[in-house]
Amino acid sequence: MNGLQEKGIPRDVVLKELKTRLGKDLTYDSGRILGSMCTSPHPFAKQVYAHFFEKNLGDPGLFTANAEIEREAVQMLGSLLSHPKAVGHIVSGGTEANILAMWMARNLHNNRCNEIVAPESVHLSFEKAADLLNLKLVKVKLDDNFRMDLEDASRKLSDKTCALVGVAGTTGLGVVDPIAELSELSLTHNVTLHVDAAFGGFVLPFLRELGYDVPDFDFTQLGVSSMTIDAHKMGLAPIPAGGILFRDESMMKAVSKRVSYLAGGETEQTTLVGTRPGASCLAVWALLKHMGRQGYRNIIKRCMQMTLKLASGIEQIDGLRLVTRPTLNIVGIKSEGSSTELLAQTLRRRGWAIALFPGHIRIVVMPHVTAAHIDVFLEDLNDAVKKLKSRKGT
Amino acid sequence: MNGLQEKGIPRDVVLKELKTRLGKDLTYDSGRILGSMCTSPHPFAKQVYAHFFEKNLGDPGLFTANAEIEREAVQMLGSLLSHPKAVGHIVSGGTEANILAMWMARNLHNNRCNEIVAPESVHLSFEKAADLLNLKLVKVKLDDNFRMDLEDASRKLSDKTCALVGVAGTTGLGVVDPIAELSELSLTHNVTLHVDAAFGGFVLPFLRELGYDVPDFDFTQLGVSSMTIDAHKMGLAPIPAGGILFRDESMMKAVSKRVSYLAGGETEQTTLVGTRPGASCLAVWALLKHMGRQGYRNIIKRCMQMTLKLASGIEQIDGLRLVTRPTLNIVGIKSEGSSTELLAQTLRRRGWAIALFPGHIRIVVMPHVTAAHIDVFLEDLNDAVKKLKSRKGT
Repeated sequence: MNGLQEKGIPRDVVLKELKTRLGKDLTYDSGRILGSMCTSPHPFAKQVYAHFFEKNLGDPGLFTANAEIEREAVQMLGSLLSHPKAVGHIVSGGTEANILAMWMARNLHNNRCNEIVAPESVHLSFEKAADLLNLKLVKVKLDDNFRMDLEDASRKLSDKTCALVGVAGTTGLGVVDPIAELSELSLTHNVTLHVDAAFGGFVLPFLRELGYDVPDFDFTQLGVSSMTIDAHKMGLAPIPAGGILFRDESMMKAVSKRVSYLAGGETEQTTLVGTRPGASCLAVWALLKHMGRQGYRNIIKRCMQMTLKLASGIEQIDGLRLVTRPTLNIVGIKSEGSSTELLAQTLRRRGWAIALFPGHIRIVVMPHVTAAHIDVFLEDLNDAVKKLKSRKGT
Repeated sequence: MNGLQEKGIPRDVVLKELKTRLGKDLTYDSGRILGSMCTSPHPFAKQVYAHFFEKNLGDPGLFTANAEIEREAVQMLGSLLSHPKAVGHIVSGGTEANILAMWMARNLHNNRCNEIVAPESVHLSFEKAADLLNLKLVKVKLDDNFRMDLEDASRKLSDKTCALVGVAGTTGLGVVDPIAELSELSLTHNVTLHVDAAFGGFVLPFLRELGYDVPDFDFTQLGVSSMTIDAHKMGLAPIPAGGILFRDESMMKAVSKRVSYLAGGETEQTTLVGTRPGASCLAVWALLKHMGRQGYRNIIKRCMQMTLKLASGIEQIDGLRLVTRPTLNIVGIKSEGSSTELLAQTLRRRGWAIALFPGHIRIVVMPHVTAAHIDVFLEDLNDAVKKLKSRKGT
């Protein structure tokens, strides 16, 4: 019965089956999803997206206003990263963005080099990029603060390097690599520097406005050639809405393909994908306009308050400790007595969707996480730790 | 004024601006878009998509029912291509699907080979794949019927070949390469055969059911390892909904990456992108259930009738001819007297979004194209040809 059936089924029957079956899925508003970098999109962004399903930016000549609005959305993202003249696209996600950046770096160096130098904390998408692009991913060790170690980075840069990657908000702990120093290094060694701010790009600018001490991490640093910033993470846009920004047009050209046969006429395509949803760009644009800096700042402020509440709660639990003070709305938890992996398994059995990294549990305090959710989690966490301890004791 | 502003703007104001500006875009229901392989998605598919914006299949452990439904959608696509046990994914589009197939082929051959052998008519996405994957795209000439020339293909296969590509519904003319013979060739030479049925996958099976003479083009041919079939083209699903199918699990593993840190627990990721919309898979599943073979067959029947109406209209215009008899709902038009390029420019100035290929104009008779649209187009086309002729005469 798995094939496509001869006769169709009425809409209401299909929708009912879908809703019943999808009841098994977790939801963000249950408060149980504590380890994801995605969240429930903003209602306004969903409303906008749902209006414009027919738009296809793979053929921008048909949808010229949509394409213009995408450029404005990119400029707004650029302004968030201190470079309103940035060029780029709203893409399928951080992975496409990071691949595009690595592809650009490789092609700009005319394939003469074959290494990406990146911190151990770099996202999986760089492993994909390296495999795809036939590049070697050379990993740099982290310093005591879980940031890319500059001395080791220096040592690993060579004639073979085509791209240096820094992360502004690592996947595991949300820490920010020393981008200013990496920028210097990249200029000295004449390699392309890409900053992966897929998560941090929508957080750090607002933390700075809120008075937090935020290191330089964006296009203010002259070595930075490209940046990833995902609207579908802390930007609250519906998936798919990643973002790739290049400092200038010439960089983007290194990956562009001429498409001559489109219904809307010739175009220069610089995304990995061809056909792509215009609606997702419209949703990003509309949401940025609707929220303004103020709107995002308020959300980030609340997320950070929740993060600090969670962090201090963790510190009060005997047998747990923070891996490091949170930089963003990400908390790393280590078990001191029993194994962290065992604790993670226990929490999952208790219905918590937390993320497990080598040696620590990650909580991402997304906008869907409330103070009440944190209280329930801390209580259950405390109980789980106690039970594990007593079990160990027996 | 291009930056992200401090203060947000009310929803209704943003939406109003958006709608006003987007008035410039072309629409499918105007009948002016005659050269695109996309169309207005089915209302039911849009409705389903809009219900489930929060689903993220980049973290399938959170959305296990959604992931299960994706597998069922893939099986339904597989059944359409004579292989209900196919594995794969609903991906961002045909380009991601084709890149995944080429990536798989390269990795399966352990990078020992570096050539893709494909017809001259192959889609641009293979140029992207070749560039990305550091492969050489070796193009095979076409025979008199615009299908891959088998002798030339044979000559171009070598120890260096890792993938042979056939197209079931070429971008330019909608013709189907001799897949059965390519399958033989691929088995003899031990290379991976990928069939790009991005467009034809949702047309050919139904044409066969309607009694059209359709050559073998799918998994019935034992050499076929993978196929692209896009639900967001003739499948009427909202973008993004490409499809990549592999004959078996082991092939898919060649591109898979272990992701250990997700909130939903460990997973094996075999898509190019990471975070991806679950809603798009749900929309495909729901639409396939709702339409059944019957629903699609009716649509394809109508599209082919319109195609034949258009084709016979073209043949009646003095100075125009068909490039070839249409196999699918795609018509290639050549100007006999004046240049085809000039005719295309004229048609575009008259507001027709037609596609221009080297030497011919392409019309895709998508479901949004009505008999009335075709009448208006034929009349205007006739007029344009006459004017060009008389201008040439003066």
